[in-house]
Amino acid sequence: MSVCRHSRSTYSFDNVLITSQAAVVGPMEGEGPLGAYFDRIWPSDLNNHDSSEQAEEALLAEAQNLAVSKAGVEWSGIDLVMGGDLLDQLVSTNFAARAHQTPLLGLFSACAVFTESLGLGALAIAGGGPKNVLAAAGSHHLSAERQFRYPLELGYQKAPTASWTSTAAGACLLTEGKASKGDDLILESVTFGQVMDWGSKNPNDMATAMAPAAFDTIKRHCEDMERDISYYDQVYTGDLGMLGIELLDATARQVGLMWSPQLNDCGKSLYDIERQDVHNGGSGPGCSASVFSGFLCRQLKSGEFHRLLLVSTGALFSPTSYQQGESIPAIAHAVAISRRN
Amino acid sequence: MSVCRHSRSTYSFDNVLITSQAAVVGPMEGEGPLGAYFDRIWPSDLNNHDSSEQAEEALLAEAQNLAVSKAGVEWSGIDLVMGGDLLDQLVSTNFAARAHQTPLLGLFSACAVFTESLGLGALAIAGGGPKNVLAAAGSHHLSAERQFRYPLELGYQKAPTASWTSTAAGACLLTEGKASKGDDLILESVTFGQVMDWGSKNPNDMATAMAPAAFDTIKRHCEDMERDISYYDQVYTGDLGMLGIELLDATARQVGLMWSPQLNDCGKSLYDIERQDVHNGGSGPGCSASVFSGFLCRQLKSGEFHRLLLVSTGALFSPTSYQQGESIPAIAHAVAISRRN
Repeated sequence: MSVCRHSRSTYSFDNVLITSQAAVVGPMEGEGPLGAYFDRIWPSDLNNHDSSEQAEEALLAEAQNLAVSKAGVEWSGIDLVMGGDLLDQLVSTNFAARAHQTPLLGLFSACAVFTESLGLGALAIAGGGPKNVLAAAGSHHLSAERQFRYPLELGYQKAPTASWTSTAAGACLLTEGKASKGDDLILESVTFGQVMDWGSKNPNDMATAMAPAAFDTIKRHCEDMERDISYYDQVYTGDLGMLGIELLDATARQVGLMWSPQLNDCGKSLYDIERQDVHNGGSGPGCSASVFSGFLCRQLKSGEFHRLLLVSTGALFSPTSYQQGESIPAIAHAVAISRRN
Repeated sequence: MSVCRHSRSTYSFDNVLITSQAAVVGPMEGEGPLGAYFDRIWPSDLNNHDSSEQAEEALLAEAQNLAVSKAGVEWSGIDLVMGGDLLDQLVSTNFAARAHQTPLLGLFSACAVFTESLGLGALAIAGGGPKNVLAAAGSHHLSAERQFRYPLELGYQKAPTASWTSTAAGACLLTEGKASKGDDLILESVTFGQVMDWGSKNPNDMATAMAPAAFDTIKRHCEDMERDISYYDQVYTGDLGMLGIELLDATARQVGLMWSPQLNDCGKSLYDIERQDVHNGGSGPGCSASVFSGFLCRQLKSGEFHRLLLVSTGALFSPTSYQQGESIPAIAHAVAISRRN
């Protein structure tokens, strides 16, 4: 069998490769420490689009188109698209699908949707279904502010613990196949997350809400795969930021696990936190999607490191649920990616 | 192989059964023509919950719990939950997952999410991944009105072509296995939809936006499976309603296809359209989920008919996209269910 079930959460594969990657980001993300790794950097937030929502759709579509063309195939050669975004009713993902005319499976797990897409896509391919799946996710700072907080024009002040929704999109083409070259990227396993809710209610501090979900998923992944976290050269969470990474490390220490040598975070890496004034760090579905598709894949391909666990994290609240006094549930999905040694 | 790929859209399976079903509905749905087929009927819209959003979460959770207990298993015996709802950021699905503590894959395709869940769940099981998947979807009339239109308390008048979001939830447990008894329900195949947009812009007439998507998916399904629509005893769309079914039939006739003997619609069946004053008919993720899990599964099990194509349809707009003058894309996912002859 090409799929191995390790537990109800964790599945591994022996025939899924990531054959192409693309990342497109906004100007601020381009000015960050990872700027050189992205395929394209927009010169402005809107890049001549009429609204931030249209800009988000275009950013996502650009990453998708680029991943398809870099793979040397046409859209008609893509079996399924899986992915999502943050906007109500997934309008970016759904509207972008009007152009590509490829069967679409819309997914939602807030900022965790990129690893949900990679994991589910790999599970489908490894099981003998589609030959390939385009996994994609995107977000835009301006449309997220307008939907979740206030339009930026109001000039409100953000809390120090607030996350900075990134203007970024990433897409990867997953393909059935075995690694033959040294720099082939293997999607080796997935651990699907459970919803965690430790009672956090502050939408200006999503790190505190999401860290427990990341902890639970990483711990479960290591147990299910019967490996220590040191099996991985790097463990990148999606958007825990400065605060969240510390909370995650502290949570692990409480049960005797020393995770800090491996831990890093896409949202922390995407920006120069101090200089760019992004408070806790980057977030949004496009954060882990672009950092993985742009930076981390290149690091893996060049042999900078060999084994990566990517753990995108999502805070599952809406403005309505917040206004009604509900707490913020969170989820994290993890995928393991490696290159042949 | 247990999965057969007929095209990039269509996959069939030989080892997926629907082993338990549950449907829970609101009072108005209980008073409709299918009332006798639902597992539980709430005595009031809110059923003692503080808000319509909390009511929607509870309705969905009740259907999920019931499907699990009717299968004679515990939640710990469920591998994955797949499903969604209409509310921004899928809060019903995500909040309900706090209690069941089972790995969750949130999906979004508006009112098409029930067949997306069934199809993706079957693809995962047939490929040798999870042993079972709980597919579930729900909606609530009051929370949908508040989010997409106006709070009901405003007493605004609905257009004759408007859909009536149903207060309903349905859940099915998909399990790996072969049919052994005459009334075993086989999930035989899925056709995943592409996004269709024929330029419709009226949120008070979603039937016109969704009919092209249903047409495209049904036509593609029949072509991919190399069968005429008459292979099926019944073809139920999700929520095209009175108008949408006529549009679908007319669209098919234009290319010489005579579909009317097979066609029916969950949203049309759920209510006594005239007497209950529901305008075009029922809609919402819970509409096809409850009509299938309550009514259609019982019809199949009792041998009333043998082969069913269920085609849930989703209109993929948000209040923001509507206010920005965008058209309404739509999608339809189809699953074929049969019993042994």
